[in-house]
Amino acid sequence: MHFLSETSLNGVIEREFTLGDITGVLWSPASGSSGAPLILSGHTGGIHKKAPGLVANAHHLVTTRGFTVAAIDAPGHGDRPRDAADDAARAAFVRARETGEPMAPIIADYNTSLAERAVPEWQATIDALQALPDIGTEAPIGYGGMTLGVAIGLMLTAVEPRITAAAFGPVFAYEALIEAAKQITIPVEFTIAWDDTEIGRQPGLTLFDACASLDKSLHVYPGRHNQMRGFDIDAGARFFTRHLGQAVTLSA
Amino acid sequence: MHFLSETSLNGVIEREFTLGDITGVLWSPASGSSGAPLILSGHTGGIHKKAPGLVANAHHLVTTRGFTVAAIDAPGHGDRPRDAADDAARAAFVRARETGEPMAPIIADYNTSLAERAVPEWQATIDALQALPDIGTEAPIGYGGMTLGVAIGLMLTAVEPRITAAAFGPVFAYEALIEAAKQITIPVEFTIAWDDTEIGRQPGLTLFDACASLDKSLHVYPGRHNQMRGFDIDAGARFFTRHLGQAVTLSA
Repeated sequence: MHFLSETSLNGVIEREFTLGDITGVLWSPASGSSGAPLILSGHTGGIHKKAPGLVANAHHLVTTRGFTVAAIDAPGHGDRPRDAADDAARAAFVRARETGEPMAPIIADYNTSLAERAVPEWQATIDALQALPDIGTEAPIGYGGMTLGVAIGLMLTAVEPRITAAAFGPVFAYEALIEAAKQITIPVEFTIAWDDTEIGRQPGLTLFDACASLDKSLHVYPGRHNQMRGFDIDAGARFFTRHLGQAVTLSA
Repeated sequence: MHFLSETSLNGVIEREFTLGDITGVLWSPASGSSGAPLILSGHTGGIHKKAPGLVANAHHLVTTRGFTVAAIDAPGHGDRPRDAADDAARAAFVRARETGEPMAPIIADYNTSLAERAVPEWQATIDALQALPDIGTEAPIGYGGMTLGVAIGLMLTAVEPRITAAAFGPVFAYEALIEAAKQITIPVEFTIAWDDTEIGRQPGLTLFDACASLDKSLHVYPGRHNQMRGFDIDAGARFFTRHLGQAVTLSA
């Protein structure tokens, strides 16, 4: 893990890093974070690890809970090169949105391909983060994501025992994700947008139903998946605090 | 409104009252509650205003938020006399539960009859509570309930503009409730039990969908409607605090 930069804003230290081909960012409390829970943040398809909503969420987790938050760009996203397959998938997605043809199959194929690469990348990132002295192997680990971040997160959580709590937003569901959900037994919180004209209601209900966790909840809000309301930003923080604990060193 | 008793426990003053035929209870902070939000608590069918879960919830709202909480027995429940129709409905309900015949039609008829009487009773109770000097007409009013308390609460909230936020748990849905939900435009939070073998999932999804409020949310938990988890007790308190404010005089 190679750190490229370190900046500090409002009590949050932000460090950009690379790990081989992976480009990532780590947010941590300026007051120190030894042993604090680590939250892995999975971005929506088409955007990147430092989209404004994700940065705001990371700052909230760091400043109100003392958590550490890590995010990586999915393959073909953010600071990572796009290949011909990425361009073709994006073009097909834009065309489907314009012509009204179903987006679900295009997204399913592309997300499957991205998740196959992203799962081992997240696992390598966790290895590298655990080797950092201010994180270590004792920090409890949670995962949170939206859309593509859910597709990757479900596949990752199903095979990665170091993740012990997960929060999943809306996503196009397909068979591999439903099968992954059936393997998940850790505490999980699902959130879906009730009036999403692209994803619809059923995928979230189906994944929630499939998830094998005894401790699971589903939260439904009006609007589309990009219209989450402000007060919900703390819902994830409360969920992770309940299951991963709070940073011992938090002075706030 | 005639007060029968006043007791105090853990900073909560509990006053039982009658108002004509209505039997009720009022919980308020020992530290005073002038202008604090008032929450109306509607009990589940077959139980009464002071069932243990409702008392615990009322104490939580009073001690952590400084709210005042009022509950009345539904007709034929708690300290109120049962008539022949109450006994017949209860017998039919028990028989249906034993034989496996559908409970929904029995519940729909009985709840409709109870709600017709309970709505004006709640309105008279609100009048009387607002005449008390420590409540008055300025206190914002919320309503929370489960099953029968939802049936009554939906009908009440649809016609009673003094209620400005409402939290509804699981309930058997029927046409009159769906029509009531369509009239409701205040902030509403629905909660349903995903694995409820009696009520099922669909009624809660249907009522949430029908509700005309722009500010509404639906929260789904595994298990049956009587298996709500401990940490959810604060969800209602957060919802009412967001929409009704917090007591000014709260010293905690």
